[in-house]
Amino acid sequence: MSRVVKLAVVPGDGIGPEVIAEAVKVLDAATAHSDVTFERSHFALGAGRYLDTGDTLTDDDLDALRSHDAILLGAVGGVPGDPRLKDANIERGLLLRLRFEFDQYVNLRPAKLYPGSTGPLADPGEIDFVVVREGTEGAYVGNGGSIRRGTPHEIANETSVNTAFGVERVVRYAFELAERRRRSLTLVHKTNVLVHAGGIWKRIVDQVAAEHPDVAVDYLHVDAATIFLVTNPGRFDVIVTDNLFGDILTDLAGAVTGGIGLAASGSINPDGVLPSTFEPVHGSAPDIAGQQKADPTAAILSVSLLLDHLGLREAADRITHAVEEDIAARGATARTTTQIGDAIVARLQA
Amino acid sequence: MSRVVKLAVVPGDGIGPEVIAEAVKVLDAATAHSDVTFERSHFALGAGRYLDTGDTLTDDDLDALRSHDAILLGAVGGVPGDPRLKDANIERGLLLRLRFEFDQYVNLRPAKLYPGSTGPLADPGEIDFVVVREGTEGAYVGNGGSIRRGTPHEIANETSVNTAFGVERVVRYAFELAERRRRSLTLVHKTNVLVHAGGIWKRIVDQVAAEHPDVAVDYLHVDAATIFLVTNPGRFDVIVTDNLFGDILTDLAGAVTGGIGLAASGSINPDGVLPSTFEPVHGSAPDIAGQQKADPTAAILSVSLLLDHLGLREAADRITHAVEEDIAARGATARTTTQIGDAIVARLQA
Ligand SMILES: CC(C)[C@H](C(=O)O)[C@@H](O)C(=O)O
Ligand SMILES: CC(C)[C@H](C(=O)O)[C@@H](O)C(=O)O
Repeated sequence: MSRVVKLAVVPGDGIGPEVIAEAVKVLDAATAHSDVTFERSHFALGAGRYLDTGDTLTDDDLDALRSHDAILLGAVGGVPGDPRLKDANIERGLLLRLRFEFDQYVNLRPAKLYPGSTGPLADPGEIDFVVVREGTEGAYVGNGGSIRRGTPHEIANETSVNTAFGVERVVRYAFELAERRRRSLTLVHKTNVLVHAGGIWKRIVDQVAAEHPDVAVDYLHVDAATIFLVTNPGRFDVIVTDNLFGDILTDLAGAVTGGIGLAASGSINPDGVLPSTFEPVHGSAPDIAGQQKADPTAAILSVSLLLDHLGLREAADRITHAVEEDIAARGATARTTTQIGDAIVARLQA
Repeated sequence: MSRVVKLAVVPGDGIGPEVIAEAVKVLDAATAHSDVTFERSHFALGAGRYLDTGDTLTDDDLDALRSHDAILLGAVGGVPGDPRLKDANIERGLLLRLRFEFDQYVNLRPAKLYPGSTGPLADPGEIDFVVVREGTEGAYVGNGGSIRRGTPHEIANETSVNTAFGVERVVRYAFELAERRRRSLTLVHKTNVLVHAGGIWKRIVDQVAAEHPDVAVDYLHVDAATIFLVTNPGRFDVIVTDNLFGDILTDLAGAVTGGIGLAASGSINPDGVLPSTFEPVHGSAPDIAGQQKADPTAAILSVSLLLDHLGLREAADRITHAVEEDIAARGATARTTTQIGDAIVARLQA
């Protein structure tokens, strides 16, 4: 009895297509002998599409994507400063719209320093944590505005919106993840200044913590958390935080664990009806696009998260393992995007 | 003709009194042969005072402080989790209230890796930049609220408020600072998501940039900025950013430049009528209070910022220079708080 998974593939812009090509090869290799068939549909979305048609993400696109089980995305975004993109906001209109429309409230970002990989820290120790970033609320809701724009009397506001419904579901997810890991959870916020937004997070974490007496719970202000990320990242297991702080912490976490070329992410709707998106944390890097210079590892690790989300844990683990071996064996010689993908495929087939 | 400077000294809580004792010694030594006399008044403010009297910062306190030329502050805040402080918010009620009441709109935070100092980065290169953080607006205005608190239907909002008046004055300050430094300015924000708050910052930076054609202007999203702070901090000269992003970036900057024990700050009202506050970036660290373990260098460098603000640049530079020499000569042996202060005083007197 074979299972069919409908996968939407969005290569996107810049280095997106290159890294996605390798990710798809790895997906095929990892699932070749399983009873799962991936039916892939290709979606041409991103800055390129916007320049061709003026569309970022139409209702028709959304309807088409909605019928898929998951989305694998490369990277989107045009060349910075391109005047034709002045009025576009591809990231907001595409990445964020997907997160909001498909209610992808868990933005999952593992941060692991693989043996053989080096980051900027002199003495990193072991780093292996996951950031569970809220994906559908906070300062990202687009609840802002300005008056007297462009005059000396302009006022521009931006409101972070936090609901018990939205906070509780992602906090529960984080506690359940902590149960399966080292049973330690750190809430990161700025409760001493953002007393209302911070208050709801703190109270809900305290409530859910009472149901998980075996999980050790810690709290850090976001400013202090950035210090620990560079001085003692080994202290973290699961971090749960809001949309904006999660954005900041995960880029920093990516940097300290060997660079954004390795950082994978899932924008997940754990309820499983609407599709979840899996994508590298890095951007489209148009400056190196088409040159086979991009590291496809983040995209490949995103495939692992995707398979894990679909319940295909064994295939997911095999990819992570192959990536781990590949990183451990990396020498000083630079490899092309394709060579890295091929090397990981070869390990999967070995 | 001698000048009298009225200085309010707020030692505060935890390690505050210890580091301020050294800072005051250094202030005296650096200005001993000048024609400036410092008239010091001591203010007992902080968690200790709150526990004694229930007051954080009264209108009388504010009136008394207002008549001073500057404020030198150690650190405030009680033992985390102290149940008697449950309803207090000393940081907000004291530090932030001072910033707001005295309109200290420039929060100045230099980040320098002194020769001899080591941070967590394997290959830091030269680090020497200043963060100009806005101090009176943004998410810090206390414009938040919640309804149905503690119920499953709670909604908690927090609004970042940004005005052309408030943004322009701090941006102008940053450009003028860049003119006196390496003529490079980086705006950090999150314009792709916070389109209104980010928009006003971007537009005003562009406007003021036109008046400073010799300053190279760059823009980074806050998430990307944290990456560069650990992978290439040498690229920064002057960073200008909003209140919340500035809070986060400066703690991280402190960490990468050898730790928060060295990071000084000024909460400055450049217009000069209302007093400015100078304080180490670190907190009150009650766990090591009274043990002579705290490094007073951040407090001492805050005195240098204070003197510079008062126009006493020569004395300011002498302190920075003495600190630089002290750091360069640091051995592996731990010194007490007093020993570090004494060593710096000795260099000033040499
Ligand atoms: C591109 C941008 C809108 C996005 C975000 O801020 O969430 C990105 O930085 C990320 O972390 O996925
Ligand atoms: C204590 C806190 C309110 C304060 C802030 O957030 O500004 C501190 O972190 C700082 O950076 O001075």
